[in-house]
Amino acid sequence: QEETESWLPSLVTETPEEGFDLAISMARKAVTTTQTDTEVLHALRPNYSRDPESLIDVSGVVASYFATIAEANDFWRD
Amino acid sequence: QEETESWLPSLVTETPEEGFDLAISMARKAVTTTQTDTEVLHALRPNYSRDPESLIDVSGVVASYFATIAEANDFWRD
Amino acid sequence: QEETESWLPSLVTETPEEGFDLAISMARKAVTTTQTDTEVLHALRPNYSRDPESLIDVSGVVASYFATIAEANDFWRD
Amino acid sequence: QEETESWLPSLVTETPEEGFDLAISMARKAVTTTQTDTEVLHALRPNYSRDPESLIDVSGVVASYFATIAEANDFWRD
Amino acid sequence: QEETESWLPSLVTETPEEGFDLAISMARKAVTTTQTDTEVLHALRPNYSRDPESLIDVSGVVASYFATIAEANDFWRD
Amino acid sequence: QEETESWLPSLVTETPEEGFDLAISMARKAVTTTQTDTEVLHALRPNYSRDPESLIDVSGVVASYFATIAEANDFWRD
Repeated sequence: QEETESWLPSLVTETPEEGFDLAISMARKAVTTTQTDTEVLHALRPNYSRDPESLIDVSGVVASYFATIAEANDFWRD
Repeated sequence: QEETESWLPSLVTETPEEGFDLAISMARKAVTTTQTDTEVLHALRPNYSRDPESLIDVSGVVASYFATIAEANDFWRD
Repeated sequence: QEETESWLPSLVTETPEEGFDLAISMARKAVTTTQTDTEVLHALRPNYSRDPESLIDVSGVVASYFATIAEANDFWRD
Repeated sequence: QEETESWLPSLVTETPEEGFDLAISMARKAVTTTQTDTEVLHALRPNYSRDPESLIDVSGVVASYFATIAEANDFWRD
Repeated sequence: QEETESWLPSLVTETPEEGFDLAISMARKAVTTTQTDTEVLHALRPNYSRDPESLIDVSGVVASYFATIAEANDFWRD
Repeated sequence: QEETESWLPSLVTETPEEGFDLAISMARKAVTTTQTDTEVLHALRPNYSRDPESLIDVSGVVASYFATIAEANDFWRD
């Protein structure tokens, strides 16, 4: 029986906006899975969130997850 | 009932040009979602908008969002 | 009535070579949309056009746009 | 007869979450295949796991593997 | 009538190896289209061809073009 | 008659693991095609194989080739 609820039960979302939010949370999840110490992550925030190059790269990573989520939802075309 | 109107109701656009504009706004949205302080973002603008490496990376990020939007619109072939 | 003619009326091109040229112009368009001051862009040219890392990155960005354009033209297979 | 069991018998997983975990292990596998000296890898960990730029790049790499795994599982749609 | 012969008449190749060679030539073409001065390019060669980071990035760019060419040839499956 | 045997006769492999190995060899081939001097390459190895950023980038390049190989093998689903 599934003790802890899955953080990623599905790639299906109601709307493109929810799909975009899921892409952002997946992008963050890959970081928190690599660096599990939240204090370290918290300390890093001022660096990347004020560095244009990092912010552009974050946007590119979100685009990669979003591409997969959009395809999973058939681009919310129906 | 949806109080705030969605910023991303759909990936469908009339023309490739509108699809390109949507890709640019999605690329920016991922940045403003990560760094919500518009003053910080405003201060960063001179850095990346005068740095060739950043401008090239921005173009690459737009290309990723555009690829998804183009597929969502079946490449505006009809 | 369309006052200004669209810079991107379609992704369809006659040949792969025209598709490649369109990919280059889309890559540039994303830059000129981000940095609208052509004088600034002109001043930046010597930097990136003599920096191998930038030239490699430009090629990668063109590849992303070309992938979308090629798919839009069914890879010019017919 | 297969002496050592394959580390990658299949791309099929039960859930998106397992697909995400597989993407992380594939991303790591490419590193450990390139740098086989685990002591060297261990010594490197503090560098990248405290560097925001590296953590963002790791997320982007996971996104690439995840895209392939998601497609292999038809986005877990059924 | 086509005076100069196209450098990219088609994406179709006989074999995956020829597809890989085409990907390399497309990657180079994007560079030579951006920097048309061959003397400058020649002078840059020692820098990127002895820089591991640049060589890795070149491989990534070739992978992007190869993905498109492989799809154009239905992965040479028949 | 084919004098030298092709290094890339096909993208088809028996298993995902063999597909992953092929992706690594294609990633390397793009480097050795760009820098043909094996002594130079050998001298570069300590740099990139001890640099976390390079190792992460190598993994991303492998992911790009793997995506194409996986699609060529219909994700080894049958």
